[in-house]
Amino acid sequence: MTYCCGILVRDGLVMIADTRTNAGLDNISTFRKLHLFEEPGERVMMLATAGNLSVTQGVVNLLTEGLEDEETHEVERLIEASSMLQAAQLVGRAVRRSLSIAGGGAEQSGVSFEVSLLFGGQIGTGALRLFMIYTAGNFIECTPDTPYLQIGEHKYGKPILDRAVSFDSDILDALKIGLISMDSTIRSNLSVGLPIDLALLRRGALRTEIATRIDGADPYFQDLRESWSRALRAAHMAIPTPPYRGRE
Amino acid sequence: MTYCCGILVRDGLVMIADTRTNAGLDNISTFRKLHLFEEPGERVMMLATAGNLSVTQGVVNLLTEGLEDEETHEVERLIEASSMLQAAQLVGRAVRRSLSIAGGGAEQSGVSFEVSLLFGGQIGTGALRLFMIYTAGNFIECTPDTPYLQIGEHKYGKPILDRAVSFDSDILDALKIGLISMDSTIRSNLSVGLPIDLALLRRGALRTEIATRIDGADPYFQDLRESWSRALRAAHMAIPTPPYRGRE
Repeated sequence: MTYCCGILVRDGLVMIADTRTNAGLDNISTFRKLHLFEEPGERVMMLATAGNLSVTQGVVNLLTEGLEDEETHEVERLIEASSMLQAAQLVGRAVRRSLSIAGGGAEQSGVSFEVSLLFGGQIGTGALRLFMIYTAGNFIECTPDTPYLQIGEHKYGKPILDRAVSFDSDILDALKIGLISMDSTIRSNLSVGLPIDLALLRRGALRTEIATRIDGADPYFQDLRESWSRALRAAHMAIPTPPYRGRE
Repeated sequence: MTYCCGILVRDGLVMIADTRTNAGLDNISTFRKLHLFEEPGERVMMLATAGNLSVTQGVVNLLTEGLEDEETHEVERLIEASSMLQAAQLVGRAVRRSLSIAGGGAEQSGVSFEVSLLFGGQIGTGALRLFMIYTAGNFIECTPDTPYLQIGEHKYGKPILDRAVSFDSDILDALKIGLISMDSTIRSNLSVGLPIDLALLRRGALRTEIATRIDGADPYFQDLRESWSRALRAAHMAIPTPPYRGRE
């Protein structure tokens, strides 16, 4: 399993992804799922992947090495896309291509070849955008009404996002809330695990302000986990005792 | 969908269940899912149900009217069970019987006949126990290591239970945390909805201390929802800003 979330606020874009993959509970590994395609000053694109690893690695390879257009036979690389919309369409095509390569025996094998991806960033003077791309290669776009998208094991970490993030949130607050959302998921689902990759891109900056990895020894993340647990305990203790008595 | 949780602490047992059922998003109804079998001073049993409504209603009917033992041909009613273990076994048999009645055409229809139930209570001088019963009629029992069980849409409401409930929690705190867990689920999953039924049984009391229904106009629950949202916002604001900068 996997948990990745992307948060798009007025100030910019945050993407966070865990690194745990598993083929059964007895086969757990660490793989990077957050990939950056960056030319500082010109373009920054971030791709987070969930689902079948052979398909998602195939997508990243196709986007890096180039994907031949079926009509024009031109080879298109993600880093050369002229807009985020064209880039998202290219990611969608790469998903379909990778699936057709890796997934030839999908029905027979009984293995799921489903994938989902978050793709966000900014190219030149174009808009900062965030997309979620499905197995079929189609996609939806994040809008200010719900300023985040999630892939993978999304349920445990959704309540805090629903309550605490808005389009007007400060971007470092959005990062913090994203880390709390990741912590909730890690606590409740063994198949989501540390280390965490994160990236932060301010609107218009055209270079990542933060691109780092957090492991179990990271003092801030340790403190966030403990503070959050303490705060949750304090929060529920501050709510009055239920007044219900007797049978009604 | 459904969300029910049972919390078994040193002081007693709390059970909470929503009332929303749906056959598709366009066919939503209210049905009681928390059923009490009580003879004050002698026994209290609580049954919460999730899954296929025709099967779970069949279970309640069989437990109320009686289930013929296949070997002895005696008719067994839940209210007459001599211990919680025997009662749980009877619930398991009622699940299998109801499934065989309702689920004859299960494979053909493509409808899921899966169910899951929480069953808890105390009979006479026996122990206060809480069980989760599966579609196959088998069951597990709640123990102090993890003093709660959930059925239905369990993920959204699990982080708060994981962090805030222990076997030593005060029982009214456990009720409050259960209501917070229910609130988180209602906010994130449309198929779980008000009103909520709840019941509270103190260990050894042999009569429900609370058995009531909470609807959207309930002032305490309204206040709990708002206080909790406020507290979550305050909690994440109290955590320092992430210190990460640059690329690593």
